[in-house]
Amino acid sequence: MEAKTPSQSFTTVTDMVLPSETNPLNNLFGGELLARMDRAASIAARRHSRRIVVTASVNHVAFNRMVPLGSVVTIEAKVSRAFTSSMEVHMNVWIEDRESGEKTQANEAIYTFVAVDETGRPVQVPAILPETEDERSKYDAALRRKQLSLVLAGKMKAKDATELKALFE
Amino acid sequence: MEAKTPSQSFTTVTDMVLPSETNPLNNLFGGELLARMDRAASIAARRHSRRIVVTASVNHVAFNRMVPLGSVVTIEAKVSRAFTSSMEVHMNVWIEDRESGEKTQANEAIYTFVAVDETGRPVQVPAILPETEDERSKYDAALRRKQLSLVLAGKMKAKDATELKALFE
Amino acid sequence: MEAKTPSQSFTTVTDMVLPSETNPLNNLFGGELLARMDRAASIAARRHSRRIVVTASVNHVAFNRMVPLGSVVTIEAKVSRAFTSSMEVHMNVWIEDRESGEKTQANEAIYTFVAVDETGRPVQVPAILPETEDERSKYDAALRRKQLSLVLAGKMKAKDATELKALFE
Amino acid sequence: MEAKTPSQSFTTVTDMVLPSETNPLNNLFGGELLARMDRAASIAARRHSRRIVVTASVNHVAFNRMVPLGSVVTIEAKVSRAFTSSMEVHMNVWIEDRESGEKTQANEAIYTFVAVDETGRPVQVPAILPETEDERSKYDAALRRKQLSLVLAGKMKAKDATELKALFE
Amino acid sequence: MEAKTPSQSFTTVTDMVLPSETNPLNNLFGGELLARMDRAASIAARRHSRRIVVTASVNHVAFNRMVPLGSVVTIEAKVSRAFTSSMEVHMNVWIEDRESGEKTQANEAIYTFVAVDETGRPVQVPAILPETEDERSKYDAALRRKQLSLVLAGKMKAKDATELKALFE
Amino acid sequence: MEAKTPSQSFTTVTDMVLPSETNPLNNLFGGELLARMDRAASIAARRHSRRIVVTASVNHVAFNRMVPLGSVVTIEAKVSRAFTSSMEVHMNVWIEDRESGEKTQANEAIYTFVAVDETGRPVQVPAILPETEDERSKYDAALRRKQLSLVLAGKMKAKDATELKALFE
Repeated sequence: MEAKTPSQSFTTVTDMVLPSETNPLNNLFGGELLARMDRAASIAARRHSRRIVVTASVNHVAFNRMVPLGSVVTIEAKVSRAFTSSMEVHMNVWIEDRESGEKTQANEAIYTFVAVDETGRPVQVPAILPETEDERSKYDAALRRKQLSLVLAGKMKAKDATELKALFE
Repeated sequence: MEAKTPSQSFTTVTDMVLPSETNPLNNLFGGELLARMDRAASIAARRHSRRIVVTASVNHVAFNRMVPLGSVVTIEAKVSRAFTSSMEVHMNVWIEDRESGEKTQANEAIYTFVAVDETGRPVQVPAILPETEDERSKYDAALRRKQLSLVLAGKMKAKDATELKALFE
Repeated sequence: MEAKTPSQSFTTVTDMVLPSETNPLNNLFGGELLARMDRAASIAARRHSRRIVVTASVNHVAFNRMVPLGSVVTIEAKVSRAFTSSMEVHMNVWIEDRESGEKTQANEAIYTFVAVDETGRPVQVPAILPETEDERSKYDAALRRKQLSLVLAGKMKAKDATELKALFE
Repeated sequence: MEAKTPSQSFTTVTDMVLPSETNPLNNLFGGELLARMDRAASIAARRHSRRIVVTASVNHVAFNRMVPLGSVVTIEAKVSRAFTSSMEVHMNVWIEDRESGEKTQANEAIYTFVAVDETGRPVQVPAILPETEDERSKYDAALRRKQLSLVLAGKMKAKDATELKALFE
Repeated sequence: MEAKTPSQSFTTVTDMVLPSETNPLNNLFGGELLARMDRAASIAARRHSRRIVVTASVNHVAFNRMVPLGSVVTIEAKVSRAFTSSMEVHMNVWIEDRESGEKTQANEAIYTFVAVDETGRPVQVPAILPETEDERSKYDAALRRKQLSLVLAGKMKAKDATELKALFE
Repeated sequence: MEAKTPSQSFTTVTDMVLPSETNPLNNLFGGELLARMDRAASIAARRHSRRIVVTASVNHVAFNRMVPLGSVVTIEAKVSRAFTSSMEVHMNVWIEDRESGEKTQANEAIYTFVAVDETGRPVQVPAILPETEDERSKYDAALRRKQLSLVLAGKMKAKDATELKALFE
């Protein structure tokens, strides 16, 4: 199974914020953005694996800026690392000011997907071959996140999480 | 501002999985569950703070079991810890077998909300007073998670994250 | 088939009123509340019967108070009486003031469901064993309502509706 | 304020049953039909009153036939009687077989609406002038239903509900 | 296969404009109206053919008037001409002023549908027999539109489009 | 007001086809695709004009290939020509096979939008400066389409539509 680059799974989803999707402050509901990101990330994971994919975990989402009603929101997703049957997907969320056209980053998120066959059993996916500096840095961070999630789930001892432990020394 | 117990914000949301919410394997879409959990958690945060609340981050979501079409899904949410204007909300997600009535846990999640005034500025919220063993253990873990998120965001040095560091020694 | 208590089917559905669900006065649409109550009541009927259930009739719904945008709405449903394959479900609808946390009753409703097999044919359901004063009073009223609906449908003579007739003497 | 005929408020709503609106037996959800009928009835009440209208009660809905996926459903609504500020709306629901084009009645329903001003206060509406036999019979039944609902709500003594009492003698 | 008149496929769809369907000027979104017209037109095409129908093309839609929030919108559709397996459907869209009850035309549209069997293969449909002056004029225009679409698609030479060419002489 | 190139308004919208959006043949509903294209095209028109934009007409949509459930659909939109306050937007719709990753064109469409101010009055937009061969060819065709629509609306005499007339000589 040949490795693929992150850019081969690159996915862009652009959409508007409609009145039915906003909270009392007239900003996009957090839950609505979480759902949109799930769709964008699952398309990226599908492009990488060419398989049915299911959401395995949400590793990190920080809502840095509110997304006001009427904004154009762009979600850019690409697979940052693959482990056997799972894929970590990195997303950047941009909002675009209507008048100036200026883009600012509203959000960054990491979701993990698993590729499965028609019966729901995990299947192997291609490895990731990072190309740019940024892709390599995300590729490395993915291992630390995986160790962290294993430690927190009690499936790995903290002292064996060598990549992660280095952070605290 | 008087402290409150986690049970004062306890929220139960029960609903079915409809055909329009399922993926090709006939299970609930991850994104749909993320959005439902956001609504349940925001009600709990609102009950704790009696303020407008906005989603600040998703700290952890693990999809342990698929949720098949036709299931009854129950989300139970309560505030586990409060920091100045932010509230960590813990959720358990249960699915119920139609024939046996048996309940199994499908999912566990942690979201963070911020209480704001009508102009979107953060406001203070009551502290949390854990009552049960389980509530105390979640209360303690919340501080480690907060340190971890500050370290990962580069806003705290790893060596100062005393609670977190203890994990790796 | 063993009888069950109303509390065994007790179901709580809590949700917010979103902008897309409101009428020109910024209150929840009647039709939207009818649909939400149908979902809550069908979960209660399913918990009582552990069968597929379909809505048979709406016996009574009174919209006593408007439900403003941004309210938290709680629907509490339980089966009040069972007749062969049909179940009467009683619902109370509460709204919660965000600032005071005070709950007021907005609505009361009675729906009837029928339990069916996979081909849509009615199947028997457990009887109801009322426990509290309130449950017994609803249990008794259910028979009068059944007689009334049979009389109005021309399937029972008014003079044979003994329970109902007593009301007018 | 000039009286109007039922046909002046006549409203036809035709639509299909889509996959996202069906239960496990592939029939239209009861709750979805309740919501559609609320919209159709509110248009009829608005045409009669030329005012903002809000749902006051659902008096009777019987689901006589299941409505299968892919059906064309037609709801026909007209105001059957008006009392000061409230209007009773009668609906017939038809389903149409795709191949034969044959129409069969699936449902009959009665909803009550109240006309209000911009602040939500009830305002007077025109009286109804029934024209056909069927309209006169529904006009008369409306009074009995109003008495019944007052009796059940404890706002009228059963012995004073003369129209209704006659049914049981 | 017996010819049918346009009135045999006549379809009326009446609905309100809800807050979730409006743009920043508080008017119905163009896309939402396009989707509603597709549903109305497909019911008319189904009534003509008694077959499964799929949208083949949108030939013309002009948004002449904005449709404000709270309007009652009525779409009237009928088949104007049939060619082997395809049907041209003409629609008029009316909006109704709540206070005066006055109706004004907001929109006119032409969609083309194809009748298919369960495997998606085109099947023959009845011819159209126009009855009124207006129906005859639409019946004639349909041929010019068909020629125009063949010319623009490069499937017919402009000089052979006799009906169409006459327009330019 | 400086002219802009078509690529400055280029917009990509990628999404999946969900079960709730499909017809009885398990393909995407025409109406749903029309609504999605309206959103994509309006974002392109907004990027060109930096104004509120409203749909003015749908000039041409041909559904060449069915879009099956589970497909990934990509809509690419760019402004092809501007006239005073209106903008013609060209769209290509691609579907992507999950297993092979192969992309095929499913659809081509042209919508026209008008830029307006906050009160709904038309405002001027930048001209278009086509760069590629394909952009120039679309730029030229836009004028013929505009003449055709004026002729069909009776606002221009066929003999004055010089660009268009040339087609038939």
